[in-house]
Amino acid sequence: MEPYVSADQQPGRFVVACVQMEPHVGAARENVERACMLIESAARNGAALVVLPELANSGYVFESREEAYALSQPLPDGEAARAFDALARQFGIHIVSGVAERAGEKLYNSALLTGPAGPLGVYRKLHLWNEEKRFFEPGDLGVPVFATPLGRIAMAICYDAWFPETFRLAAMQGADLVCVPTNWVPMPSQPDDRPAMATTLAMAAAHSNGLAIACADRVGTERGQPFLGQSLIVGGDGWPIAGPASADREEILYGTIDVARTRAGRTLNPRNHVLLDRRVDLYDAMLGTKTARGPA
Amino acid sequence: MEPYVSADQQPGRFVVACVQMEPHVGAARENVERACMLIESAARNGAALVVLPELANSGYVFESREEAYALSQPLPDGEAARAFDALARQFGIHIVSGVAERAGEKLYNSALLTGPAGPLGVYRKLHLWNEEKRFFEPGDLGVPVFATPLGRIAMAICYDAWFPETFRLAAMQGADLVCVPTNWVPMPSQPDDRPAMATTLAMAAAHSNGLAIACADRVGTERGQPFLGQSLIVGGDGWPIAGPASADREEILYGTIDVARTRAGRTLNPRNHVLLDRRVDLYDAMLGTKTARGPA
Repeated sequence: MEPYVSADQQPGRFVVACVQMEPHVGAARENVERACMLIESAARNGAALVVLPELANSGYVFESREEAYALSQPLPDGEAARAFDALARQFGIHIVSGVAERAGEKLYNSALLTGPAGPLGVYRKLHLWNEEKRFFEPGDLGVPVFATPLGRIAMAICYDAWFPETFRLAAMQGADLVCVPTNWVPMPSQPDDRPAMATTLAMAAAHSNGLAIACADRVGTERGQPFLGQSLIVGGDGWPIAGPASADREEILYGTIDVARTRAGRTLNPRNHVLLDRRVDLYDAMLGTKTARGPA
Repeated sequence: MEPYVSADQQPGRFVVACVQMEPHVGAARENVERACMLIESAARNGAALVVLPELANSGYVFESREEAYALSQPLPDGEAARAFDALARQFGIHIVSGVAERAGEKLYNSALLTGPAGPLGVYRKLHLWNEEKRFFEPGDLGVPVFATPLGRIAMAICYDAWFPETFRLAAMQGADLVCVPTNWVPMPSQPDDRPAMATTLAMAAAHSNGLAIACADRVGTERGQPFLGQSLIVGGDGWPIAGPASADREEILYGTIDVARTRAGRTLNPRNHVLLDRRVDLYDAMLGTKTARGPA
């Protein structure tokens, strides 16, 4: 087994890889096999953390509730989760995978964080998009932040990123990096000659919160629904580290996250800090917010 | 006096003008005269609402607290406010002006909304940037939203836009348009070949909240401090309606705000609405937020 932090990695810096792939709805085994091949490739290229798209095991466009049930798996004991677990142990890496989760009779659009020593935790999509509401329950686990040797990692999925609260909740708990498995779909207002609005949201959220964001999108068209690709890795200053990737090809996007620099960057000058400058006193009065002021 | 809504304006649509100008610190009378000339020009070109930069009367880089006091004026009774009031009445327009406000012994970095029938209200910058903290008190009026015949208007100033809460507070009170008088300064991380990060923040905030944003920036260099220009008008879908303007020239940017369309655009599909989809239940538990779910 390779060491957890490989010799060429400086402490506080690591390579994140966003796997942009094309799952096929219904082909659960083939999707996981393809994902594993791409994870292995990313690990051999030096990635310490690999992010897969949303619903990478199941595909996205379900025809029926029965199909959604059949394609969902328990976490962390389902086939997909066990396959990713084996790879995380073998290569000493972390993996964030978008997985259709079955928990008893409930389905969730989930993301699983797996580390070299096994599963670390699950995130369940808080904000469900359109027909997802026919199949999935809304997430009930908040925005958990997981301490890892790489840094503090949170997860969000696709439409979650439309809501600034998602990243605020992660930031206020100290997240250094938010991994975003996603299946971005076209918006009617999107101009053809511009990067997807979702990339703008990721840049703004990273900038506003002083944290890095790694978005792994899918490509292809499934049952008439096209997806946007354009996976993106953004630094804590809001500027892309890598990407956007292509709109239509499977590829792996690599970027180096500098955790120490990300944290230091939250102090903008001797008088300003992106999290400590929040006007909690007024948010309190107007939104009823009672949150702590966040970590320095 | 011209009619309040000119004959060629459809109900629910109006032209907003962002005046990108170069105030000079200390030259209070000249700054206001220049601003009035540009407001008049915008009004004659069909603008129903004109937005001026931050601290348009005083300039930005104060050398001392005494200078800041000398350049600040009471609202709405100071010279600058009275000049803008006269123009608003004369042309039947609304004006949002960035003004150094003196309220008793306190100074605020403020914005004043003036309508055809007189002053409508004041906003005081909530999030103070760097040396502003030497001169100004932090804003104590929240993010008020003013109902006008044009639509519901809120204000924010410069660094306020770094905080997604600012726009959320406006959106949850029904704002259709947030006017942003600003004095954007360069960030060390800003690449030369990209629009200012502030324009990305405005696009994301408009998109996330389904409201329009009109940013009027200043240009020029004052006592060694350069400013970025690039004034911008963004629609409720997050895409620019006009701009970014130049980085270094005085100019007036015009855009048409369609209020009815902005409101309708918050409904993304039969199952999703950008404000109603907020997971208030979870924000509650995690951030203590007790806000209402916002207007439909």
